[in-house]
Amino acid sequence: MKIGITGTGSYIPSIITKNDDFLEHEFLGTDGTTFGNDNAVIIEKFKAITGISERRYANPELKTSDLGYLASEKAIEDAGINKEDLDYIIFAHNFGDLTYGKNQGDTLPSLATRVKHLLKIKNPKCVAYDMLFGCPGWIEGVIQAYAFIKSGMAKKCLVIGGETLSRVLDEHDRDSMIYSDGAGAAIIEADPVSGAILGHSSATYANEEAYYLFFDKTYNNEGCPDTRYIKMHGRKIYEFACTHVPQAMAACLNESGVHIDEVKKIFIHQANEKMDEAIIKRFYRLYNKQAPEGIMPMSIHKLGNSSVATVPTLYDLVSKGEIDDHEVKKGDVVIFASVGAGMNINAIVYRY
Amino acid sequence: MKIGITGTGSYIPSIITKNDDFLEHEFLGTDGTTFGNDNAVIIEKFKAITGISERRYANPELKTSDLGYLASEKAIEDAGINKEDLDYIIFAHNFGDLTYGKNQGDTLPSLATRVKHLLKIKNPKCVAYDMLFGCPGWIEGVIQAYAFIKSGMAKKCLVIGGETLSRVLDEHDRDSMIYSDGAGAAIIEADPVSGAILGHSSATYANEEAYYLFFDKTYNNEGCPDTRYIKMHGRKIYEFACTHVPQAMAACLNESGVHIDEVKKIFIHQANEKMDEAIIKRFYRLYNKQAPEGIMPMSIHKLGNSSVATVPTLYDLVSKGEIDDHEVKKGDVVIFASVGAGMNINAIVYRY
Repeated sequence: MKIGITGTGSYIPSIITKNDDFLEHEFLGTDGTTFGNDNAVIIEKFKAITGISERRYANPELKTSDLGYLASEKAIEDAGINKEDLDYIIFAHNFGDLTYGKNQGDTLPSLATRVKHLLKIKNPKCVAYDMLFGCPGWIEGVIQAYAFIKSGMAKKCLVIGGETLSRVLDEHDRDSMIYSDGAGAAIIEADPVSGAILGHSSATYANEEAYYLFFDKTYNNEGCPDTRYIKMHGRKIYEFACTHVPQAMAACLNESGVHIDEVKKIFIHQANEKMDEAIIKRFYRLYNKQAPEGIMPMSIHKLGNSSVATVPTLYDLVSKGEIDDHEVKKGDVVIFASVGAGMNINAIVYRY
Repeated sequence: MKIGITGTGSYIPSIITKNDDFLEHEFLGTDGTTFGNDNAVIIEKFKAITGISERRYANPELKTSDLGYLASEKAIEDAGINKEDLDYIIFAHNFGDLTYGKNQGDTLPSLATRVKHLLKIKNPKCVAYDMLFGCPGWIEGVIQAYAFIKSGMAKKCLVIGGETLSRVLDEHDRDSMIYSDGAGAAIIEADPVSGAILGHSSATYANEEAYYLFFDKTYNNEGCPDTRYIKMHGRKIYEFACTHVPQAMAACLNESGVHIDEVKKIFIHQANEKMDEAIIKRFYRLYNKQAPEGIMPMSIHKLGNSSVATVPTLYDLVSKGEIDDHEVKKGDVVIFASVGAGMNINAIVYRY
């Protein structure tokens, strides 16, 4: 049975925050002390590594479920399906709905239910649930939709990835410049005219890696000790990702039976440009090849790292011709790949 | 292919809170005013409706993921499997790990990752994710495990339901007496010696029902306006459940091809004894029958409503002979059923 993506949509928040907007921030080390360098130097280094020059934040009145809803509306329209025919709504996120200025996430009801509510879907057999799998959550949601369709339990699924990381970041942490907000969505269907998942692969590394991304207090010793923010051991994540993601992608590609030369694009989680480039380089090295020019479209420069939203947003933009010098054509083989909290890794080999 | 439950485990927290422990509580109405009745009357009415005389709270040093881990250890031992052979760890919850005395849930990393970490499972192909589906989350997790096994993506899955509702309750809300803590877990396997899922059914009602269970501030007008607690429209939930759950159970039973007279036990979400009795009565009425004596084992009297943990805990207790006058024997047909936030409903018809 052929199972493919028949429609996509994304929502890119309207508030643009540029690197220069961080010039007056008080960045602190893990021990609460200030850095010797001034912020201009910190920002320059940050940009050289991550590639990020600006990122998007959601308007205060919008929550993650709203972003997901706005992306879903477009995906449903793009697929040309009747929303009442959806068998599943799978919403991948990690922090629930975050109210601007507050610290508690809200998952009661689930964000998938909120999207179903906003979409005004009446059919009770459209099952709505949330799924937490770190940044790779959207790809994992697609794999779950694939399982439901393959097992005969579903024909059409809506898979959403959305996050408002701007509301769980510690403004005293340099890493906070990485994070952004956004949502992407896709319709996965049985027997589409075109498109087919050719292979997939997932992994969870939960030994010493389990807490490479974690929730902890601000670096500001005078800040509230009870409020938790997203924190990461960046160097460890970098090394972990460079070691394990290329292998996972290769295992997935080999299992799909597709030759490396057939791969036209790699849609990788927009975590950090240097890291993504290193992953792709090592992936091709496994085949004794060099990464082809233009294999990896990037949105991180302007959109930052919106966690679970990066891959569906990037794919949506490229498939709609909205990223310069990148396109996908019918029959092209592409790879989706991600890595993040868990530590989770996954990949899908897909024929467009 | 036969897919069944090969092992179960539960963790029942050690702190017993009796109804009398609420005698000195200041219960308030939704508008913040006190009730005319004294607490003894409120508690008596509460007990008459819910059946709850005491409930369990987790020790302050244990979080939801710890309860899930303790239940999982037992389930793995009970199934007699090698933990490294698990293909999935699915953790159903709704609020993440809640630190005693704090208000922020923590889902970074996912609770499934935390359990995998505590179990010291090394195999990276054991994929760990969290799933949010209200109280019916554990049953839904079993259905997802079923899909993975049926589609050939897995052979052995660990499905956990756990919650520490004692840490998201508003002590000024009478409904807070319902909530408790706990965790249950099960191993789902392909081709077990005995046991088989015969049918399953799931639904999400997200129109006017979407916010019947919701997150809101305390009824105490002097309390923190920013801290959110679990809240419910009890009367609406009662009517909703009595209308829709019997239908869902019947649809599931009919699809499984099993005759109503073959059903030996119904393991229903321990939400409220009167509501559960009304559901079962209406379910049998759909077949022009009266509910048989002893069809519905109950744990709510002593354990309260631990959300997603009730069904796996109850099933574990009965299958191990720990609930007086209840047993399940090889070949018995039983039904699992649940209803809760989303509003979600599901059911499984299962041959023991």
